[in-house]
Amino acid sequence: RSLVPQKVQKNHRKMSALQEMSPNVRNIKQLQYVALIRRASQIKEELRQKVRKPYKEMIDVCWGDPHRAGVKPLTFVRQVLAACLYPQLVDSDTLPVDVRQRARMLLRGCAGGSVGSYTAPAGTSEIVHGISEFITRRDGGAPSYPENIYISPGSQWALQNIINVLVNSEPSSPKTGVLTPLPCYSTTISSMVGLGAVAVPYSLCEERGWELQVEELQRALESAKGVCKPVALYIVNPGNPTGYVQSRKSMQEVIRFASEKRLFLLADEVYQDCVYGDNSEFVSYKRVLAEMGPPLSDTVELASFHSASKGFMGECGLRGGYVELVNMDPAVMKYIYTLFSADSCAPVLGQFALDLLTSPPQPGDPSYPLYRQVRGSDDQFAGCLIVVNSLPGFSCQPVEGGVFAFPRMHLPPAAIHKATEMGMQPDLFYCARLLEEAGVFVIPGCEYGQKEGTYHIRFCIMVQEDIMEELLRRLTSFHTQFMKDFS
Amino acid sequence: RSLVPQKVQKNHRKMSALQEMSPNVRNIKQLQYVALIRRASQIKEELRQKVRKPYKEMIDVCWGDPHRAGVKPLTFVRQVLAACLYPQLVDSDTLPVDVRQRARMLLRGCAGGSVGSYTAPAGTSEIVHGISEFITRRDGGAPSYPENIYISPGSQWALQNIINVLVNSEPSSPKTGVLTPLPCYSTTISSMVGLGAVAVPYSLCEERGWELQVEELQRALESAKGVCKPVALYIVNPGNPTGYVQSRKSMQEVIRFASEKRLFLLADEVYQDCVYGDNSEFVSYKRVLAEMGPPLSDTVELASFHSASKGFMGECGLRGGYVELVNMDPAVMKYIYTLFSADSCAPVLGQFALDLLTSPPQPGDPSYPLYRQVRGSDDQFAGCLIVVNSLPGFSCQPVEGGVFAFPRMHLPPAAIHKATEMGMQPDLFYCARLLEEAGVFVIPGCEYGQKEGTYHIRFCIMVQEDIMEELLRRLTSFHTQFMKDFS
Repeated sequence: RSLVPQKVQKNHRKMSALQEMSPNVRNIKQLQYVALIRRASQIKEELRQKVRKPYKEMIDVCWGDPHRAGVKPLTFVRQVLAACLYPQLVDSDTLPVDVRQRARMLLRGCAGGSVGSYTAPAGTSEIVHGISEFITRRDGGAPSYPENIYISPGSQWALQNIINVLVNSEPSSPKTGVLTPLPCYSTTISSMVGLGAVAVPYSLCEERGWELQVEELQRALESAKGVCKPVALYIVNPGNPTGYVQSRKSMQEVIRFASEKRLFLLADEVYQDCVYGDNSEFVSYKRVLAEMGPPLSDTVELASFHSASKGFMGECGLRGGYVELVNMDPAVMKYIYTLFSADSCAPVLGQFALDLLTSPPQPGDPSYPLYRQVRGSDDQFAGCLIVVNSLPGFSCQPVEGGVFAFPRMHLPPAAIHKATEMGMQPDLFYCARLLEEAGVFVIPGCEYGQKEGTYHIRFCIMVQEDIMEELLRRLTSFHTQFMKDFS
Repeated sequence: RSLVPQKVQKNHRKMSALQEMSPNVRNIKQLQYVALIRRASQIKEELRQKVRKPYKEMIDVCWGDPHRAGVKPLTFVRQVLAACLYPQLVDSDTLPVDVRQRARMLLRGCAGGSVGSYTAPAGTSEIVHGISEFITRRDGGAPSYPENIYISPGSQWALQNIINVLVNSEPSSPKTGVLTPLPCYSTTISSMVGLGAVAVPYSLCEERGWELQVEELQRALESAKGVCKPVALYIVNPGNPTGYVQSRKSMQEVIRFASEKRLFLLADEVYQDCVYGDNSEFVSYKRVLAEMGPPLSDTVELASFHSASKGFMGECGLRGGYVELVNMDPAVMKYIYTLFSADSCAPVLGQFALDLLTSPPQPGDPSYPLYRQVRGSDDQFAGCLIVVNSLPGFSCQPVEGGVFAFPRMHLPPAAIHKATEMGMQPDLFYCARLLEEAGVFVIPGCEYGQKEGTYHIRFCIMVQEDIMEELLRRLTSFHTQFMKDFS
């Protein structure tokens, strides 16, 4: 009786041995900040056990996870979901009338009236129809069809299914390429690589607020020659980690480029509700494409992703996202159905969260006043950037959208030297010390890809006001000391 | 402004065109009963609109989905989850003390105390530890290590990640094979094929209660020569759709076979709580492997899957499953972590459901008496089989476990002829008529694979007692008429 964990038997060749493992999976770059994640949970445990530190609580702003960062969930959302889980609440009068009505409506769409039943692979029909109506409203009337919408356990999961359809693994064919932004959320690239695709990076222009430039797309496309055949272009708008919001004009250029080069557009639009810049507004790729008219609007293939995890709702843990597919070959849509069927369906409560996101309480509804109030204001984001930009060596582009700041750090040569000595990327070194000494958990730019010789950190700015203040206080004090230590 | 759904532009070659689509995805066999699913939802809609039919309600027993089939959720489970979603309930005295305690404990494991936060990729640490303790108890003390357990949105999803690691897509290598049972749940095979694996079927022996026979594994292995290189053996125990429960002796033979042939064991054990046969008991592969001692217990690689969707809990819609990995190469375990990270984490409420499944109320807890009572008895299953076997042309092997009956039907030649004329598999034809005429929705055996010339239907037997009675009444009356019509 041993079953020793992770014991390597010297004389037994494993099926799962590294050299026999899927080359696609082996190509995945491992997360660099795994050690950081581990240390953060150790520190949390130490704090729980009252180990003495210069801080009493950790500030965990590493993910786009508002509840983790102290934001409270929306009461309306939680009341509806609790009532759906425990229908006795629907019949009691402890909850507002509109909450109970919504819960009843949602449960009617469930087989057996239970959130414990599977739904159709694309999601509950009523909710999919509601999302389709939301998209049509959002896009100024550009038509949306329920049969093109698939709900999934998070938008990344839907993205994987679409990538899986696009990847050509025929031995005789070149590898399939996907143009991806640099910097880019690293697990997105991991999933693509894990499915056999090659990520072809195009750089966003930091100096111009992380702008997406078509000439750079062209350069990236050419760089792929002899390496892979790019078939898709992945765009994150509003940006993660960058905070850039694309203009209509820029999107038109991208659409023309995609059409000319025959690229499938993958538009990650999960931060569509988070746009702050005075001169910025979110416009969906679907809408711009529709407005450009035929032949583009009938031909350019597009997948647009949205999620209940992001924005004011921030229900990451419920796992609900969707993809809308535009202009996809109907013969291929059948396979999309089959792929989504393979995992039965998205979590029903995540599906419900999407319904609440896309059909929120309206003026006049009993839950509306509280709901409005909790959505909050964007002033603190502006304030945050002023403080960050005042730190010596820090420079942060304006955050027009999304939930992250991604400031650049001009680190002193001594710090870079020290980090290199320790075999660490300089910004990872910075983050490790920030975590240890100030109890602030942020992610280093090396995790997202960055121009050589530049260093960044990413942190979530959608946090409770008092936590933001404390975060900036700690960052300022740590950074001042850090610069002194390595000057 | 057109964006017409699924309009094919004749002169525009699509990136997603069928001929350009991933060959792996193109290899997926499309579900044969999609038309049946569509018709079933139409009929439901027609019934809602009071269209006249020979029945007032549809009996939907097509999936292993107890709530869909009228089974009520466990009160304890729903109370805890509702309290976690809406923590005001934790502080009120409307819920039993043990419910509130459990909710408090579960929320403590969430970042920011909210189910809306992401967890670690493998799941909340406390819950993963709890699952590990459950496994150790279940397996008579065979050790289980939390670091080898990954929670996912359903067990099938975890299976896909493991398959992805095992598939070798190197152009110079032969394709990767996975031995899969025949009959087998079809979407499992779809996911494997979609990831580039080849399913190599081994037949279960219907005449011997759908027994798994090692000679047949050997035959299947040989049949793969020149086609692919089998690296894994997929086993469903207790069986789906078959209801077969493997004996310890049979499992030992399979383990020796896997060791000898260097096959990674994929043990789908999601029906482990559903064993009815007087002489049957569920023993996990992990336990049998541990009991066999070294060298087998240190070398045979195993992934064992479990789920909150199945068994007495039946919370399919929450989406919570897990995999435990045994003897996997530690270097590869890092990639497993990376793959699971790519989708952030499993739904938090699905994770909680796993906690409630593996640590249910104990004698003395306020919720225990109600909880015991609702778990119910297995007598109705026995009764169901007696009725099914009494139908002319029907013969059903004993159901020792799982939640399905999978009777064989000896259809009259005239029915087979009629079906062939209509371009349908005979059992699909039978199911379509059963749905239309009797409002009973079951799945044809052709969906799972079956020996040529044999026909089956699968239906869920974990249903409310009165629904089971009505189901058998309708099936008997329909079948009698069907046999008359085609005699």
